[in-house]
Amino acid sequence: MSTSRKRRRALQSRKIPGAAPGTLVVDPNAPVSKVELLAYGPHQQVDLKDLPVSQISEYLTKFPVTWVNVEGLGDLTVLQELGRLFHLHPLALEDVVNLHQRAKVEVYGDQLFIVTHMVTLKEQDGRCHLESEQLSMFLGPGFVLSFQQGLEGDVLNPVRERVRRDNSHIRVCGPDHLAYAMLDAVIDHYFPVVERYGERLEDLEDAILGRPAQSMIAEIHQAKRELLLLRRNLWPQREAVNALIRDPIPLITDETRVYLRDCHDHAMRLMDLVETCREVCSDLMDLYLSSVSNRMNEIMKVLTVMSTLFIPLTFVVGIYGMNFDTSAPLNMPELKWRYGYPACLLVMVLISIGQLLFFWRRGWIFGRR
Amino acid sequence: MSTSRKRRRALQSRKIPGAAPGTLVVDPNAPVSKVELLAYGPHQQVDLKDLPVSQISEYLTKFPVTWVNVEGLGDLTVLQELGRLFHLHPLALEDVVNLHQRAKVEVYGDQLFIVTHMVTLKEQDGRCHLESEQLSMFLGPGFVLSFQQGLEGDVLNPVRERVRRDNSHIRVCGPDHLAYAMLDAVIDHYFPVVERYGERLEDLEDAILGRPAQSMIAEIHQAKRELLLLRRNLWPQREAVNALIRDPIPLITDETRVYLRDCHDHAMRLMDLVETCREVCSDLMDLYLSSVSNRMNEIMKVLTVMSTLFIPLTFVVGIYGMNFDTSAPLNMPELKWRYGYPACLLVMVLISIGQLLFFWRRGWIFGRR
Amino acid sequence: MSTSRKRRRALQSRKIPGAAPGTLVVDPNAPVSKVELLAYGPHQQVDLKDLPVSQISEYLTKFPVTWVNVEGLGDLTVLQELGRLFHLHPLALEDVVNLHQRAKVEVYGDQLFIVTHMVTLKEQDGRCHLESEQLSMFLGPGFVLSFQQGLEGDVLNPVRERVRRDNSHIRVCGPDHLAYAMLDAVIDHYFPVVERYGERLEDLEDAILGRPAQSMIAEIHQAKRELLLLRRNLWPQREAVNALIRDPIPLITDETRVYLRDCHDHAMRLMDLVETCREVCSDLMDLYLSSVSNRMNEIMKVLTVMSTLFIPLTFVVGIYGMNFDTSAPLNMPELKWRYGYPACLLVMVLISIGQLLFFWRRGWIFGRR
Amino acid sequence: MSTSRKRRRALQSRKIPGAAPGTLVVDPNAPVSKVELLAYGPHQQVDLKDLPVSQISEYLTKFPVTWVNVEGLGDLTVLQELGRLFHLHPLALEDVVNLHQRAKVEVYGDQLFIVTHMVTLKEQDGRCHLESEQLSMFLGPGFVLSFQQGLEGDVLNPVRERVRRDNSHIRVCGPDHLAYAMLDAVIDHYFPVVERYGERLEDLEDAILGRPAQSMIAEIHQAKRELLLLRRNLWPQREAVNALIRDPIPLITDETRVYLRDCHDHAMRLMDLVETCREVCSDLMDLYLSSVSNRMNEIMKVLTVMSTLFIPLTFVVGIYGMNFDTSAPLNMPELKWRYGYPACLLVMVLISIGQLLFFWRRGWIFGRR
Amino acid sequence: MSTSRKRRRALQSRKIPGAAPGTLVVDPNAPVSKVELLAYGPHQQVDLKDLPVSQISEYLTKFPVTWVNVEGLGDLTVLQELGRLFHLHPLALEDVVNLHQRAKVEVYGDQLFIVTHMVTLKEQDGRCHLESEQLSMFLGPGFVLSFQQGLEGDVLNPVRERVRRDNSHIRVCGPDHLAYAMLDAVIDHYFPVVERYGERLEDLEDAILGRPAQSMIAEIHQAKRELLLLRRNLWPQREAVNALIRDPIPLITDETRVYLRDCHDHAMRLMDLVETCREVCSDLMDLYLSSVSNRMNEIMKVLTVMSTLFIPLTFVVGIYGMNFDTSAPLNMPELKWRYGYPACLLVMVLISIGQLLFFWRRGWIFGRR
Repeated sequence: MSTSRKRRRALQSRKIPGAAPGTLVVDPNAPVSKVELLAYGPHQQVDLKDLPVSQISEYLTKFPVTWVNVEGLGDLTVLQELGRLFHLHPLALEDVVNLHQRAKVEVYGDQLFIVTHMVTLKEQDGRCHLESEQLSMFLGPGFVLSFQQGLEGDVLNPVRERVRRDNSHIRVCGPDHLAYAMLDAVIDHYFPVVERYGERLEDLEDAILGRPAQSMIAEIHQAKRELLLLRRNLWPQREAVNALIRDPIPLITDETRVYLRDCHDHAMRLMDLVETCREVCSDLMDLYLSSVSNRMNEIMKVLTVMSTLFIPLTFVVGIYGMNFDTSAPLNMPELKWRYGYPACLLVMVLISIGQLLFFWRRGWIFGRR
Repeated sequence: MSTSRKRRRALQSRKIPGAAPGTLVVDPNAPVSKVELLAYGPHQQVDLKDLPVSQISEYLTKFPVTWVNVEGLGDLTVLQELGRLFHLHPLALEDVVNLHQRAKVEVYGDQLFIVTHMVTLKEQDGRCHLESEQLSMFLGPGFVLSFQQGLEGDVLNPVRERVRRDNSHIRVCGPDHLAYAMLDAVIDHYFPVVERYGERLEDLEDAILGRPAQSMIAEIHQAKRELLLLRRNLWPQREAVNALIRDPIPLITDETRVYLRDCHDHAMRLMDLVETCREVCSDLMDLYLSSVSNRMNEIMKVLTVMSTLFIPLTFVVGIYGMNFDTSAPLNMPELKWRYGYPACLLVMVLISIGQLLFFWRRGWIFGRR
Repeated sequence: MSTSRKRRRALQSRKIPGAAPGTLVVDPNAPVSKVELLAYGPHQQVDLKDLPVSQISEYLTKFPVTWVNVEGLGDLTVLQELGRLFHLHPLALEDVVNLHQRAKVEVYGDQLFIVTHMVTLKEQDGRCHLESEQLSMFLGPGFVLSFQQGLEGDVLNPVRERVRRDNSHIRVCGPDHLAYAMLDAVIDHYFPVVERYGERLEDLEDAILGRPAQSMIAEIHQAKRELLLLRRNLWPQREAVNALIRDPIPLITDETRVYLRDCHDHAMRLMDLVETCREVCSDLMDLYLSSVSNRMNEIMKVLTVMSTLFIPLTFVVGIYGMNFDTSAPLNMPELKWRYGYPACLLVMVLISIGQLLFFWRRGWIFGRR
Repeated sequence: MSTSRKRRRALQSRKIPGAAPGTLVVDPNAPVSKVELLAYGPHQQVDLKDLPVSQISEYLTKFPVTWVNVEGLGDLTVLQELGRLFHLHPLALEDVVNLHQRAKVEVYGDQLFIVTHMVTLKEQDGRCHLESEQLSMFLGPGFVLSFQQGLEGDVLNPVRERVRRDNSHIRVCGPDHLAYAMLDAVIDHYFPVVERYGERLEDLEDAILGRPAQSMIAEIHQAKRELLLLRRNLWPQREAVNALIRDPIPLITDETRVYLRDCHDHAMRLMDLVETCREVCSDLMDLYLSSVSNRMNEIMKVLTVMSTLFIPLTFVVGIYGMNFDTSAPLNMPELKWRYGYPACLLVMVLISIGQLLFFWRRGWIFGRR
Repeated sequence: MSTSRKRRRALQSRKIPGAAPGTLVVDPNAPVSKVELLAYGPHQQVDLKDLPVSQISEYLTKFPVTWVNVEGLGDLTVLQELGRLFHLHPLALEDVVNLHQRAKVEVYGDQLFIVTHMVTLKEQDGRCHLESEQLSMFLGPGFVLSFQQGLEGDVLNPVRERVRRDNSHIRVCGPDHLAYAMLDAVIDHYFPVVERYGERLEDLEDAILGRPAQSMIAEIHQAKRELLLLRRNLWPQREAVNALIRDPIPLITDETRVYLRDCHDHAMRLMDLVETCREVCSDLMDLYLSSVSNRMNEIMKVLTVMSTLFIPLTFVVGIYGMNFDTSAPLNMPELKWRYGYPACLLVMVLISIGQLLFFWRRGWIFGRR
């Protein structure tokens, strides 16, 4: 029930149909917004947490690159202040709040609006499910403004580390390289997730070959559906990166384009891995079905062997259980023979041997099953 | 029968094959046409119902934007008068009346003709079916003329509300923004419908895992077919919106294009949701089939266990029911033994235990089923 | 056999492989060619039947539009005379005679050569099959020359009616509009055919849900194959219309292009309908298979219930049919008990009740099947 | 085994991986090369067989068109001499010898290199299999040089006939028309092959509906695989013809392009036919499976009817075979009744009638099966 | 287990998500790097093994073409020195070390970076599995620098041989021809691998037709998955070659482009072969399933024939085992008849013959199975 409710929630969008575009409707259960600022140039860097929006503007002019990261989308005023400060387009800001957007790159004047999804695999009680968190970025001249849903787990920490390190390449590059680094971190985090699926499917294969159970079908289907979700997440992400490489956007330098090409390659490789996993899912389905039909066959064989072995014998013993009046000479004279009973037993043994030979030649018994 | 008749009707077009193009054939059962006018500018707005066509022209010149909405397509004269007043192309007007058009955008001189479909999910006696209503729009300089079939339920009310509100953004925009707002309302109304399908499929999954019944196949198929219909509705709608964004149509301002991009995004997301639901349908089909074959397996196991357990025993008791003359020493001496009967029972118990062990080792009994 | 022979004939082309291109080989069984002329301008029109080819040329100069229609392709000389009169390209003329061409539009100098297919559904002995007839058209300056196979049934009569009516729009248009009107009539005649398939599939669904029979598989397959044929007919037709709209052909005026767009729309809608029908076919196949496996399940349940119910009972009665010497005290003392028989019956009734409970709990009896 | 060996051979390429490109490795088992020359102009023609390569050059200058045809690829020196005489590119010449190339058109300087495949259907012992032979052509100014593998059967004879006939159209055209005529002959020879498949599938359908046998699966699969091969042969052929039509190759005149369009049409039609046959294959597979499951159902019904009919009866007769001491008043008093036996028989008849009614109502007996 | 572990390893990438791009992380288990140099011009060539990186530069200027091949990627310093010497882009160098890249062609300044995969089929204990090794190449003015993983088996030896041979074509060409020769060798080495799969599938087909076993499903799936892997390897390889042909890269001469076209053709043919093998896999799956269901059918037939044959007979003998008091005239008078027993046997024989006739007419016995 809990998983089904989660899925249901994932399907529902919060926006009221027909509402004016650009309306900001904040989810009352969303975590409180925390603003974090990382401003840096080749030689210095500043790292501030929980600072009010009003203080951001001074860093924007002082540093070559300013990265403002907002975790948690529960604070309408913070979002609106940031919108005014950075001149964000209302439609883009709406997309930040209204989750479940497709990954995309959009140009609004001199700003780029990028939506991606970070995924993590939560394992709980031996079962794992996929969690997806939207990361929205605005890339403008001299700044990157990013919004996270604020769930636990953060894929951007390695990027922060690289910014803080004094002689790292990222410090001498512009905000476009920072945006690339974030995108790259997001996409690279898909690798362990996809690899985990590969392992799960291997375990499932072993289990099916061992003893197939109905529950495995459900597991295969869950894996298939989550891989589909991954594919749906990755595809537009790949397209977005491609748009950044290909489209003549002045914010993106040629050097960054070379790096983005690398990022695009990783997305392609991920797609390949996901597709392979999905093929494996289909194969497992086939394997399960053939395994089940194999067991059915085996059951039928046992039934058939036992039934057909004893049916003629039971008929024979039935004959000699008849009560015909044996005083008439033709009425079952066998009953009065001296060796009647042993002869009867012998006949039955011969019938059995004949049948066993028949079964053995067909490979139903004593052969490989 | 009623649903099949409905489907049949949905397949039939009213046009006579080979009739001259542009011939208006009005459905005699269509509701009477009601004309409604909403004219507005930044500072004033007029809202009139059931006004005659002849009075429309005066508002067209007085207000920056005039929205004429016709509900019900049963009135040939109203349609013809509007055709003359707005210089509508006869082929476009024919498409307004002749329902079941694909969603499309067509340029006729300085006018745009847009066809979309609104969907609603009618629930009746616990079963729900999809209803689709065609909305045709003409967008020209200073006006939007829209035609609805006039069924109950109206997705355009939120748009009307926004026009009536004094300080809303829509009041300062041109007719292209009004057309966008209508398109957006239509597309956004697909979300609750698709989400309802998601929920239905979840319920169906629970039911199949519980106790599969033949009727579920029909339900899955109905859902699949209606999702196909939704996809068929959405795909050209997405294409139409894309044409509006991409094609150099002077009626559409660049600002509206940005909004239409948002609309296009929603259509893409809907397509994704519908595709996911369709995948779920296929999975449910698999689940049903594997569930049925599982039950078959179970039935076979019970039959096999019972049959093979008792068949040898019945043979044994048959033997001692034979009437061989026991005066001959080799003819069934067991019958005269003191412990003949208990020994016989013991043999049968041993046979049973042997068989039960065999079944248990194969996992047919006392194991997980 | 007759249908298979028909199909076989439909697959065979009359042309000898390697023969020179442009060779006219007339089918000896084809109906005799009948030439019909309809020449018209805005104010007058002439309608002539069975006129010799030599008289055609005078009308070509006198009237703005001359429509020469040839029914039946059995007359080599008529075809050759027409070829000389209208300067038809030998390859095009070969395609007129050599049936089973794909629908196409080809430019030969200042002429357009258009091939389409008209379909009709022949119903015979409760079974219906699809018949397709090739319609080839040459559109040149001031004339349309069309060739029909000359089977019964004619989709072009409504076009003739429109030409004969004095104030119809077609009279003031050029030959391109006439060609459009013919194309439109051909495409519109697909609608009743496709709708008939929709109805047949509905009937089939009812029948399958009632009592599935092997013959239904064949019916589904026939419908599927004919729908495939329809799709194969429609797809190039749609492409041909699209080529007429898109390519810069001077013969086609811009006004006619607007009308052709409508025609293209109809073709698209037909494709949608056909695709929907094909999906329904696949669903019916699934339904049939699940219905059959359901019945199998039911049969197995009855067998299992009956067998397992009586097998233990038969064993019990077998025991008391054994002939052990009851003079030994341990040899079946039950036989001599006063209430031995009633006790035995009671035991059997209890066994039965136990089993029935087991079956009932599994939902095999007295539950919904 | 023989067919599998053939298939294996078909898969193997003779080239050593990593060998220098342009290396000519001649198959030692290939037939000896025979050179044949057909030189012609509008008014004269020369037809020579088995002439040495050194004599070819004189005809090249004397006649407008010279067609050199080489049958059998076993002669390395002949191939090398021709390569030098016609300045063939070593890669192209390698492709002539190294069979199993995809059909293609390649430009080498002022020459065109065209690879196609001729197919024939060999029937042997009632079973037929597809044979494919590579035809490579070089089209240059004033000559066509063609290479055949030299198996029996030749599709080019009709072309030779047309060249030899004095007033045929081909005599007044250039070498491009000759190349077209050869391509056209090759493609037209696919028609009888594909039609033969259509007939085989029809026969198979009749056989499956009659009495399905396991061997039919193998036949369907063979047909499917060969149709796939045909499709794989046809697809690049169609593409090659399309390249000839579309690409601006000076060797091909506009008139020949019109003829090639016809050739392209035929290829498209063949693809349609092959696709239809492949669909029929899938349908036959379904038909076979449903037919088998139908028979299974029938078998189960017979088993169930017989078993459940006699099981209760056998139980009843078992009861009266028990040996209870009838001196006790409650122990089977029926045995002593005057009408005990007839009553017992009556009960059994009633039980049987009840069961038969039950079966009949379910449609298991006396109904349509 | 071992294969599953291998697959798992193959899925895992060594890079830490979020690490700075261009970070070189060397696999500690990778073989030690061995540098090999082959410098050549039309008239001389030098062949050196295990030379230090510092000595390479002198050959670069002395010879028209220098080929530096590095086997084994375990030496960080060697890689970094080469990176500095040849001015390799850090992202490209990272891709050399970080295996499992897709095949690709990338332009970095005046260098081309090409990634391909060599495959070999390792046979072990009668089972074979696919091994893939990455080959990365840098093509710059006057040099080719290639990196191999350094597993056993080398597809490049034929290329080395051709370079060493004095009058080979490769010696007079530039480094682009060398790169082509390497690509060609890599692609040509796929042929024996794919052919080996074709043979395996044939053997499997014979085995399935003989006696289907559950293990064959797993074998089919393994083959299918490895063919998918081959396809995934080949597809980007084909695309990379295509990019080299099509893109205006000054390093590639027109002559080399002609040779690359040949290479592209081979890749296409390989794709065709792989696709054919994959189709065969699907067919084998069908064959297996139909074969299994056929055996099931056979088992059911035996069970049904035996059961229904003896069930009525057993009933008959049961009747005459009843103990009705035969002193009453209607109670089983047959028992006292003189020919009671023979008559009873006759009845049973007649019943059996009737049933056998029934079975024979249905084709269950004595017919083709």
